[in-house]
Amino acid sequence: MTFDSSQLTPVDDALEYLLRQVSQTQKTEHVMLSNALGRVLAKPQTSQIDVPPWANSAMDGYAVRYSDLAAQTALPVSQRIPAGAVGSALTPNTAARIFTGAPMPTGADTVIMQEQCSVDGSHVQLSSSIDGVEKGQNVRAMGEDIRTGQQVLAKGQRLRAQELGLLASLGLDSVLVYRKLKIAVLSTGDELIEPGSAAGLGQIYNSNRYTLAGLIAGLEMDFVPLGIIADSRVETERALQKASQQADIIISSGGVSVGEEDHVKAVIEGQGFIHLWKLAIKPGKPFAYGEFDGTPVLALPGNPSAVLVTFLILARPYLLKMQGMNSIRNTPAVAIADFEMPKPSNRRRYLHARVQFPQSTDAPIGTTEGFSANQELPNISQVYGRSLSDHLPKIQLYPQQSSGMLSGASWAQGIAVVEVGQSVTKGQPVLFYSFADLLN
Amino acid sequence: MTFDSSQLTPVDDALEYLLRQVSQTQKTEHVMLSNALGRVLAKPQTSQIDVPPWANSAMDGYAVRYSDLAAQTALPVSQRIPAGAVGSALTPNTAARIFTGAPMPTGADTVIMQEQCSVDGSHVQLSSSIDGVEKGQNVRAMGEDIRTGQQVLAKGQRLRAQELGLLASLGLDSVLVYRKLKIAVLSTGDELIEPGSAAGLGQIYNSNRYTLAGLIAGLEMDFVPLGIIADSRVETERALQKASQQADIIISSGGVSVGEEDHVKAVIEGQGFIHLWKLAIKPGKPFAYGEFDGTPVLALPGNPSAVLVTFLILARPYLLKMQGMNSIRNTPAVAIADFEMPKPSNRRRYLHARVQFPQSTDAPIGTTEGFSANQELPNISQVYGRSLSDHLPKIQLYPQQSSGMLSGASWAQGIAVVEVGQSVTKGQPVLFYSFADLLN
Repeated sequence: MTFDSSQLTPVDDALEYLLRQVSQTQKTEHVMLSNALGRVLAKPQTSQIDVPPWANSAMDGYAVRYSDLAAQTALPVSQRIPAGAVGSALTPNTAARIFTGAPMPTGADTVIMQEQCSVDGSHVQLSSSIDGVEKGQNVRAMGEDIRTGQQVLAKGQRLRAQELGLLASLGLDSVLVYRKLKIAVLSTGDELIEPGSAAGLGQIYNSNRYTLAGLIAGLEMDFVPLGIIADSRVETERALQKASQQADIIISSGGVSVGEEDHVKAVIEGQGFIHLWKLAIKPGKPFAYGEFDGTPVLALPGNPSAVLVTFLILARPYLLKMQGMNSIRNTPAVAIADFEMPKPSNRRRYLHARVQFPQSTDAPIGTTEGFSANQELPNISQVYGRSLSDHLPKIQLYPQQSSGMLSGASWAQGIAVVEVGQSVTKGQPVLFYSFADLLN
Repeated sequence: MTFDSSQLTPVDDALEYLLRQVSQTQKTEHVMLSNALGRVLAKPQTSQIDVPPWANSAMDGYAVRYSDLAAQTALPVSQRIPAGAVGSALTPNTAARIFTGAPMPTGADTVIMQEQCSVDGSHVQLSSSIDGVEKGQNVRAMGEDIRTGQQVLAKGQRLRAQELGLLASLGLDSVLVYRKLKIAVLSTGDELIEPGSAAGLGQIYNSNRYTLAGLIAGLEMDFVPLGIIADSRVETERALQKASQQADIIISSGGVSVGEEDHVKAVIEGQGFIHLWKLAIKPGKPFAYGEFDGTPVLALPGNPSAVLVTFLILARPYLLKMQGMNSIRNTPAVAIADFEMPKPSNRRRYLHARVQFPQSTDAPIGTTEGFSANQELPNISQVYGRSLSDHLPKIQLYPQQSSGMLSGASWAQGIAVVEVGQSVTKGQPVLFYSFADLLN
């Protein structure tokens, strides 16, 4: 890891360095399961019960003892066990009417689906041969899915909808999670004013604060707004002190430089350290990492597109690790370039992009009243023996990649990546990260 | 579209039918931009300003009149314009010290980066030939990115972090959005109890309520819990009436059938209509769509895995359209099967899956203290002239796909899709939807 400011630092080196610096938060709290979406488990979660807790029927039908079926005669229906009810022990040579989820009565070992039975008054009979019946069929065994004491979720797991359902199915209504990171966000630049007021000559709206607020909320962390810091040493020091008292980490936008109008570097160095990097990333490049009074500082560039990209690529993994997550998996998709990029760059490019399957028709499913949804599956069954690249999604770029505006990021579904020193020709495979994968 | 209950209905037909039934919400509200993440714009958003609002410097450097450079002599520095300040008109044959983002002084048309200048006392001079300088360089023109009156976001756009930043950059601090849909969720089944209490024999925990709460929160909609409805006609009718008064749409789990223990169908038919489908989907199959007292009803199956899949594939597009979104783009990735599935099914299978690039090493970037992050890019530059499929991500399945438990969904990063009637051999391309793409 070099901090030679005359050289461009590769993105992966910077990320690796950052991830080695992270101190995972130790603060935990119990939250109700209904408030736990997006939170990170602070201990491994084990089950206190067997799932299913008792053998039960997987179907609506008739519970029998398999051996009683051999006679192939009609069995009297001796009891009725709806879901939620508890039957009595099964009288030999009888059947119990049973419903999906109901506990198997003692003595019964097999369930015949109602569709395979004929009912005559109070008796039930197999409508076909016993050869089609297996002992134990349509019965879910006790503990078949999870046994008491088994770990179901690891420490560091982030809770999605399915984890909430999984924990609820174990009877849990609260969980121990890490406290949400508090992230102080400050913007530097005398030219900035907040949206909602009229801008005078020389003033521009502070958009980075809103972009960062959205990014932080998407990660289920707490946004602590510190507003716009004037370009003065006293103001900068006061803001950083407030931030380090109120927050677990500080994120600034507006760039940190050695320029005469920039006090961030000097103030941080007075009470910690700061490394200024020139990253091999586009958009982006100026990026600083440091510590002020023991609180980590990530200083992003000021350009709105660069804020978005450097947050997603560098700050997000840092924050998620700090929040206690045990892993991050963002696997890019491979798509086929529908664009040219003849000139290689000495920085890795992250480009606003959309992907679409070539098979998509002009009238995708559900095009009604100006609404379109492209969930219909492209047909990739004919891929065998043909060129696979004809069947991968095509990737298109927003025309004005160089703009600092977020129009391109808004147009895009995600970002395409072009590696340092590489050019792109049409038809070439290119990696694509969906924003949905990175914004949460 | 057939409602013949003896036939399996294809998923795409069901989805197309559902999307044609949707009435988009008409309820709108103004919200502050800081509360607008995930909300859907209720009108096209146009800009009230030019961006940039005035020509400004793209660099720290010196603003000059290009024609004054021809003499190649040192120019006196006549003023200093930091970001946020407003300069005076540029005196001919002088330069203005200028910083990134500061308005260009009247008369200046070009900015020389400070790195390309040499400064001697109060004078500045190009350090290299004028041939490297273009008239207008390093100047961002007024309105270059957005012009007053230009539409920047369409009605029906869902607001992500970048849209918040984009709107803020236009000076907007509030937006008109659709009111969040209120979604009443009810679970049917006498065997269900809520987590947090001890379950007796025959009782199981209501996990679907928590899964659905998480799914609904992920879409930024309001979850209206109606709890567990007893298997009685009176209770079912009371619950549906309450739901239709309190909510825009009703989602039930627990399956609707013609079974003797199920009153949902009869009650809904009494005050509306209901179509029971057998969908060609696995997990899933029983799925009902109807209307009770004018409120739409989506009745999902009871199996927890089936709830997750049918919600993501069928309910989610319906809800997002109802919420006012103008399009949904979920483009699956193509990955290479690292599994076999020899037996074709008459239902489309949605399988819990993980994807990973074959190039991933055992020690991905940032593996420290039990943490791993796989953001490092796989190298696909050597793909030319080789088999592309060697460079696509490999897809693995959770071993117990048939379980109703959500353990598989929790293990998974997303869902692989296997079409009706198809088998899968190792090495074959398979479509993969990331959960991140579907859970928001």
